[in-house]
Amino acid sequence: MLPNAPENRSLWPMPINYDRTVHFADTDAAGVVFFANYLTICHEAYEESLAASGIDLKGFFADHGIVIPIVKSEADYLRPLSCGDKLRVTVKPALLSEDSYEIRYEITRLGRSAKSAAHVRTEHVCIDSGTRARRALPGAMSDWVRAG
Amino acid sequence: MLPNAPENRSLWPMPINYDRTVHFADTDAAGVVFFANYLTICHEAYEESLAASGIDLKGFFADHGIVIPIVKSEADYLRPLSCGDKLRVTVKPALLSEDSYEIRYEITRLGRSAKSAAHVRTEHVCIDSGTRARRALPGAMSDWVRAG
Amino acid sequence: MLPNAPENRSLWPMPINYDRTVHFADTDAAGVVFFANYLTICHEAYEESLAASGIDLKGFFADHGIVIPIVKSEADYLRPLSCGDKLRVTVKPALLSEDSYEIRYEITRLGRSAKSAAHVRTEHVCIDSGTRARRALPGAMSDWVRAG
Amino acid sequence: MLPNAPENRSLWPMPINYDRTVHFADTDAAGVVFFANYLTICHEAYEESLAASGIDLKGFFADHGIVIPIVKSEADYLRPLSCGDKLRVTVKPALLSEDSYEIRYEITRLGRSAKSAAHVRTEHVCIDSGTRARRALPGAMSDWVRAG
Repeated sequence: MLPNAPENRSLWPMPINYDRTVHFADTDAAGVVFFANYLTICHEAYEESLAASGIDLKGFFADHGIVIPIVKSEADYLRPLSCGDKLRVTVKPALLSEDSYEIRYEITRLGRSAKSAAHVRTEHVCIDSGTRARRALPGAMSDWVRAG
Repeated sequence: MLPNAPENRSLWPMPINYDRTVHFADTDAAGVVFFANYLTICHEAYEESLAASGIDLKGFFADHGIVIPIVKSEADYLRPLSCGDKLRVTVKPALLSEDSYEIRYEITRLGRSAKSAAHVRTEHVCIDSGTRARRALPGAMSDWVRAG
Repeated sequence: MLPNAPENRSLWPMPINYDRTVHFADTDAAGVVFFANYLTICHEAYEESLAASGIDLKGFFADHGIVIPIVKSEADYLRPLSCGDKLRVTVKPALLSEDSYEIRYEITRLGRSAKSAAHVRTEHVCIDSGTRARRALPGAMSDWVRAG
Repeated sequence: MLPNAPENRSLWPMPINYDRTVHFADTDAAGVVFFANYLTICHEAYEESLAASGIDLKGFFADHGIVIPIVKSEADYLRPLSCGDKLRVTVKPALLSEDSYEIRYEITRLGRSAKSAAHVRTEHVCIDSGTRARRALPGAMSDWVRAG
């Protein structure tokens, strides 16, 4: 246990599941979710997980000198998703260095027989928004990653 | 009471509230929800309400000969919305004729003091997707509108 | 001629037409453009028109104390639009007061016989982003509106 | 030269560049283009390239028995993009097998000193939409890929 970990933050009940219904606006003329929207759905799960850890989203995503942009994304699309489908997204962050982390997402289509619909991975680097130089992750963020 | 109303459909528990958190992807570089996305959020509430009445969304929004496109929208934007804001959307449909209905939406930003954030209204007309001629609403849809 | 009009700004060649192809991402599972995306397409035309008048978009849409949010939108959807359709959007701004203006858009689907696809109207009010109090339009903006 | 290549399709002037201005709706509250929208912009370039080869987009992206979904995407985000930025997207397809191809995209931010803003790669597999079994690419598509 880290001696200065305030109140065992890493033991906070971080939600690892985000449930989401497929909306009509997620779909395209092929009748299923547009490929880029799988990434958008994963980002929603990331936001929910941050919010559940007590991180203020409005401040987090605005530019206050330190920003943590996504520098890489990878997705395997395994299954088409239709309007009304019920999804569960799991969020698994892991530190890559003191200034970066990855998140692995699994999108599952729920129903009589739940099926994996996509694997997604994003990579995030903490930088100074003015100079674009790398900066160590703020404490609340490295706590969130470690709790994942 | 309509003599042939099967099992009092109009008494089904239609949800009148749709709760939704503002996502990062809803926002734009002004830091708040992009104006067109208020309409998208209302459409999600419409979908949830249809699904709760037992209407299959995948079939409903696909083109199976009869479609019910939106022919008009109106929105009053009263308040900016930020990432992480908690919203409640109420959905109030009303028949305009045997082949058309309107929906009135109220978007409220929840919190210590809940505030109205937008009024939105859409108008829907039932047509034959081939000829574009007007068609009477299918029974399940007029039931949904009447239950609103 | 206004005595203090710098370099005849109002005579600048303001583009009144914005040409745009319908993209796959604009469509939904009904096979046609999602209703809220008609508004997004009109906003693109607004941006192009501002840029053509020499207004810096990056600065314009960021929050620098004075912002000009959309307070109302109205749309009549006359015709479905499909992926690959060629559109022309006309932009007609008009002053409503010293701190507000409206824009009327006409979306035409080009082709052998051009057809009107939608009428859209937005209303914009200039405010102090801190206090939300109304403020007179900046000179460059009232010039742009008057040139429309 | 392929003996049965009708009218030297592979010599058709396939556009390899797609020029695009960053729109306000592409951005998020961090003030720059949302990461998933880089993929959407690449898909627009793909569509433009197909259309320029004479492929009908409305038919191509609808489900007519044979569909060519994206099964994988990868993106390296090198630089933030702001509203009003001028982009050029290059599209380089390559066959992976008789039923699949990849596309490599390069997004460049134009201006006094043009800079690479992202590398994106997508992988596409041709399948029967009913059985999901792999099918050989239709001739027009393998021509398009070979011409890239």
